[in-house]
Amino acid sequence: MRLASLLAATAFLGIAAARTGPNPPNRLTGFSAAGERVERDWEAKFKAMPSPDSQRSYMRHLTARPHHVGSPYDSANAQWILAHFKSWGLDAHIERFEVLFPTPRDRLVELVAPTRFKASLAEPTVPGDPTSAQHAEQLPTYNAYSIDGDVTAPLVYVNYGLPSDYDELARHGVSAKGAIVIARYGNSWRGVKPMVAAEHGAVGCIIYSDPADDGYGQGDTYPKGPYRPKEGVQRGSVMEMQLYPGDPLTPGVGATHDAKRLARADAPTITKIPVLPISYGDAQPLLAALGGPVAPEPWRGGLGITYHMGAGPARVHLVVTSNWDIKPVYDVIATIRGSTEPDEWVVRGNHEDAWVNGAEDPTAGQVAMMEEARALGTLLAQGWHPRRTIIYAAWDGEEPMLLGSTEWVEEHADELRQKAVAYLNSDTNDRGYLFAGGTPSLARFVSDVAKDVEDPETHLSVWKRRMLADIGNARSDDARKRARDTGVLRVGPLGSGSDYSGFVDHLGIASLNIGFGGESNGGGVYHSVYDDFYWYTHFSDTSFVYGRALSQMGGLSVMRLADAQVLPYDFVNLASTVQGYVTELQELLQSEQDETAERNREIQEGVFAATSDPWHPTIAPPVESLPPHLGFAALQNGADSLTRSADRYAKTFAALEADTAYAAGEPAVNALLVQAARRLTDKRGLPGRPWYTFELEAPGFYTGYGAKTMPAVREAIEQRKFPLAQQQIETVGSVLGAEAALIDSAATMLGHTPR
Amino acid sequence: MRLASLLAATAFLGIAAARTGPNPPNRLTGFSAAGERVERDWEAKFKAMPSPDSQRSYMRHLTARPHHVGSPYDSANAQWILAHFKSWGLDAHIERFEVLFPTPRDRLVELVAPTRFKASLAEPTVPGDPTSAQHAEQLPTYNAYSIDGDVTAPLVYVNYGLPSDYDELARHGVSAKGAIVIARYGNSWRGVKPMVAAEHGAVGCIIYSDPADDGYGQGDTYPKGPYRPKEGVQRGSVMEMQLYPGDPLTPGVGATHDAKRLARADAPTITKIPVLPISYGDAQPLLAALGGPVAPEPWRGGLGITYHMGAGPARVHLVVTSNWDIKPVYDVIATIRGSTEPDEWVVRGNHEDAWVNGAEDPTAGQVAMMEEARALGTLLAQGWHPRRTIIYAAWDGEEPMLLGSTEWVEEHADELRQKAVAYLNSDTNDRGYLFAGGTPSLARFVSDVAKDVEDPETHLSVWKRRMLADIGNARSDDARKRARDTGVLRVGPLGSGSDYSGFVDHLGIASLNIGFGGESNGGGVYHSVYDDFYWYTHFSDTSFVYGRALSQMGGLSVMRLADAQVLPYDFVNLASTVQGYVTELQELLQSEQDETAERNREIQEGVFAATSDPWHPTIAPPVESLPPHLGFAALQNGADSLTRSADRYAKTFAALEADTAYAAGEPAVNALLVQAARRLTDKRGLPGRPWYTFELEAPGFYTGYGAKTMPAVREAIEQRKFPLAQQQIETVGSVLGAEAALIDSAATMLGHTPR
Repeated sequence: MRLASLLAATAFLGIAAARTGPNPPNRLTGFSAAGERVERDWEAKFKAMPSPDSQRSYMRHLTARPHHVGSPYDSANAQWILAHFKSWGLDAHIERFEVLFPTPRDRLVELVAPTRFKASLAEPTVPGDPTSAQHAEQLPTYNAYSIDGDVTAPLVYVNYGLPSDYDELARHGVSAKGAIVIARYGNSWRGVKPMVAAEHGAVGCIIYSDPADDGYGQGDTYPKGPYRPKEGVQRGSVMEMQLYPGDPLTPGVGATHDAKRLARADAPTITKIPVLPISYGDAQPLLAALGGPVAPEPWRGGLGITYHMGAGPARVHLVVTSNWDIKPVYDVIATIRGSTEPDEWVVRGNHEDAWVNGAEDPTAGQVAMMEEARALGTLLAQGWHPRRTIIYAAWDGEEPMLLGSTEWVEEHADELRQKAVAYLNSDTNDRGYLFAGGTPSLARFVSDVAKDVEDPETHLSVWKRRMLADIGNARSDDARKRARDTGVLRVGPLGSGSDYSGFVDHLGIASLNIGFGGESNGGGVYHSVYDDFYWYTHFSDTSFVYGRALSQMGGLSVMRLADAQVLPYDFVNLASTVQGYVTELQELLQSEQDETAERNREIQEGVFAATSDPWHPTIAPPVESLPPHLGFAALQNGADSLTRSADRYAKTFAALEADTAYAAGEPAVNALLVQAARRLTDKRGLPGRPWYTFELEAPGFYTGYGAKTMPAVREAIEQRKFPLAQQQIETVGSVLGAEAALIDSAATMLGHTPR
Repeated sequence: MRLASLLAATAFLGIAAARTGPNPPNRLTGFSAAGERVERDWEAKFKAMPSPDSQRSYMRHLTARPHHVGSPYDSANAQWILAHFKSWGLDAHIERFEVLFPTPRDRLVELVAPTRFKASLAEPTVPGDPTSAQHAEQLPTYNAYSIDGDVTAPLVYVNYGLPSDYDELARHGVSAKGAIVIARYGNSWRGVKPMVAAEHGAVGCIIYSDPADDGYGQGDTYPKGPYRPKEGVQRGSVMEMQLYPGDPLTPGVGATHDAKRLARADAPTITKIPVLPISYGDAQPLLAALGGPVAPEPWRGGLGITYHMGAGPARVHLVVTSNWDIKPVYDVIATIRGSTEPDEWVVRGNHEDAWVNGAEDPTAGQVAMMEEARALGTLLAQGWHPRRTIIYAAWDGEEPMLLGSTEWVEEHADELRQKAVAYLNSDTNDRGYLFAGGTPSLARFVSDVAKDVEDPETHLSVWKRRMLADIGNARSDDARKRARDTGVLRVGPLGSGSDYSGFVDHLGIASLNIGFGGESNGGGVYHSVYDDFYWYTHFSDTSFVYGRALSQMGGLSVMRLADAQVLPYDFVNLASTVQGYVTELQELLQSEQDETAERNREIQEGVFAATSDPWHPTIAPPVESLPPHLGFAALQNGADSLTRSADRYAKTFAALEADTAYAAGEPAVNALLVQAARRLTDKRGLPGRPWYTFELEAPGFYTGYGAKTMPAVREAIEQRKFPLAQQQIETVGSVLGAEAALIDSAATMLGHTPR
């Protein structure tokens, strides 16, 4: 059989499957018929190997004690994982970096007026949950990389602490200047909250978990149910990773022992004001003591109080100081050398450090990845020889802000730029539906893998279950139609929040982030002492069958990427995604123009004056100048070139002869394809944050983990920097043109393959 | 000046005003130039008369003691109002009816398992609020017209108790059969909740005020702020007024002493299961004791608990028994006889009975209406002679369900059918924006009045302030454009909930309901002991300036309707409103078809099976047959006839000569126009509820107060009675044709006016 027909068949099998229910085994993209037969045999062997019971026993060991960066058990876990990797026949070692990692010294949140109340800042032992009692080893509740501070000031409630929330405060005549703000977790990454607070002149920031979002409003609380109890606190990093993640003292280079370091005072990613997280039990007396305007409806949470904005009469004393030590992080790196293409690397990672005991985050993902590694080791012993090099990494220091992975990426940047085929990440794992984020060129690939993995609850493929859920959850006919008519999962952009950031955002390596979740109780004890073995084995993937499914998803993905004759990137999906971004940007500008014009008109008509209640006056927003028109031609031309090249590549690929004739052309094409995602970078980086070089997406400056697509242009428009937006349209247009040229070359090369 | 040009000018003055800000005085529809000059003079005198201080003193007197139906103070207030009407020179008397009015005997809500808790069912005295202490005279908290009962059963939480909420329960495998349901107030009229509960087999119903909707979730609670305190209870009638309001024993006829009465056991408007309202303080332990599935997100209220659906383990003992007495109601009726058209009646009403002391509901409206009556009495003494008869009515027995107004309407039905020009209602009053509901033919009329009344806070016209608020609150470009481009307020359909129901719903009398509200604190103590003078004078229209504005709106409306040479109905707005309803009905059927098809498809695809969490299983909805196509031609033809007639009438009206030539044609035209709204009735009534004869709108069978437009057709579609829907399309089409014919005759008559 000709490879051409195989590949053509693959292209619509997804659709047929979506329409007919149970899907026939799909054909493997990038494999000849013979190659596929061999691959399928190894994959069948692989899929039978991951063991839920083994994952349970790994988790019991890894979560037995708190294991944050610098703790004895963190180091011990790294050694334990290393030993396992080695015992499974992998070539493993530990790579050590030395990073700035602050731990709490003084912490105080005290209401000093109109009444007094001192926040407990403590998570008590839960009877029956043994590790919740390990107080001596637990990191106290804090936000890492808060600057030291000791402030007393009136309190202001700022909802989620987004820029638009401060606009709303201003409309009610409330200012955060000189105040301590209290923001609730959610709707943006936590580090955005103190950053925006500082921009508005606040002198301190308290972040709490509102029970409507994260507590009894979601379901029964621990230990009766899985949700955050009254005293549970979400720890977490507030490092300003929108500038760069990793060690604050060594931006762009690996934090080796001898690395050149910034002085701490010069590190731009440490917060500008002190920050501390608290529980809703501690937040209630503070919020109840606020006066000022009643908070607008969307600001009201689940506490049994009337939410006010302040400022005051509540005054708060906030103290945060840290031990600013340099601590080691231990990345465990295990390598399987490629048999024919050792200089093409498939990297697979999951972190192992936790804020405390960390069962769901990250051990559920870590133990699934370990079972992959064990299974691949067994395959090696049975004679499997992957074409490409495979690297398994158990990252340290993810929680403080991707320390282990970022430093490793920075240290090996040159080699990764040359060799990296893809990075596959996982992190937390739970029950439910497959989620997958990633670079658009890998969306079809991961969808195809998902068709070959069974959902343990419904016995549908995880792809099918996810597609049916997408149909059920669709909010528009278009979304429903998309879910029905395409075999490709909706793979969202990555942003930040786990260890893929260095790979994709800094270097432009095609990346995927996968896991399971969405069934009723995920994340209920996120970053608290209660995310532990007892909680996980009572409320999450208690039988570790989703751990097995994650091993299967991860392992099959790694094997296919490592074994494919031609790398299975899908540029058609890339091009259509890019076209979508370009359309969105034009719509964004249009809606900014329309909204500004409408708001200005309403100000002039007197709408705001007419609707200000004299008892509760509101202030009209300021008149803003109308955003100018921008020329989008460079982006449109770039996107169109990309579409043409992608179509040509897809047609050429589909016309290829199989097997031997095909094989002859591979190495050169693959060497070019490996660079495809890198072409989407601009070495100057995004405006104001040069560490981020990938032009398709980045963590949003004001959203944090939440990705912004085409961020150089999008954020310039959002921030009303229109000359910059115009300039970046040209830049990104060029990048798209370069990508199109690479794909075109690859198509030409494939077209010249001898037949 | 020719009337023609005056009227033509009127037609677009509204638009010009909307565009240019301050509106020039608009010309009066239906008046000749000479007539307008006279009218404007009297109106100017009138507008200066209503006194805030007088309203305050009336309110202090009327709310000094509880004055529910049958109480001594209710009777005393009627006599007091009568005396005032007489003292102002009006021809006043009291009309007495005898109605079934149950008052509480036994009330019990007790949690009997898994723990015990007895609800207090009591509203305590608030220090500083003197009338809150009048416990001996207060009606206890209850729902009037609950059937007697004594039941013990598992508890089920049913959210707002709508039919769709029971669908949601079924999807979670929870049944209300044999259970006592607890529903929260809101999102439907309270009486719908026990009715739907009984339809689903429940044996009892508890209704509570959730603090998210009505309590601290909205703002600070009484006495710190205006919102419902923990112990505050919403009393209210649960009579099944969707069948008919008024005395349950005398449907369709006045409840005079000798009226023929049904046996109580045969009265269909008494509930089928016992019902009792409780506070959120009393509700919390009941809801906290529920198990079963966690309630879905939209069901979760503001209590600091996890909301569960049940059934059980909470078991509740509910006892309700009443004294089923016949009680007197006293309508105070004051008449100003028309000088030239005494047999054309303009009726103005506001109730005076309350659940307890009733400051906002209804005394704020009652005292504004009294000041109108006083001012009109003064005008009479100064020589004003309205052309038509004016009737002012202070209704008794509104709270139990429109007893006084309904019995009066039924008693005088024949005369009202002949003579009634319009009914103008008010009820509660507060600070803020004008709201107006009513028959579409009066929308332009009330808008024109609103241009001549000043908003006391902004000093804009109340029309302008409302229009600017509509622009600011618009959720779509279309809604914003409508608010900007038309001078006509959006006057919604009436449904039920106040004394206009007998007039419009039963007899087809053009009606308006007006008042002010919407600023931050309206209704916070609705139907509780705390709706009293202290609350109103601290938290509502404390200076009674909106009381004055309401007097001005009501008085000007009455004067213009009573004085106009040609009745100022606007059939163009009627026709366009009707066209809108016809379009909506077609869209409703289409969306029922689309939603059914989509849901059936998803059931077949396995969406529901794939998304059922085995730990919290959900049940797929049943497959339903696809709604058939219906022929809408009869409605479309009727609506088109109406549009053509209305256009012809408007053109003829605009071409009329003014003054003497015009005057000669008036009486006959007006006699016809008076019947215009009556033509929109069908004497057979709505399917299954013959008391309701008006085909444009009615209270919804499953929404209660919330109106359904073209209810005969709409509810048949919603309830999937498609043959009935087809039949009612023909019926309503005929009614529209008859209306068109009447308007056509009026146009012909006007066209033949000698010139």
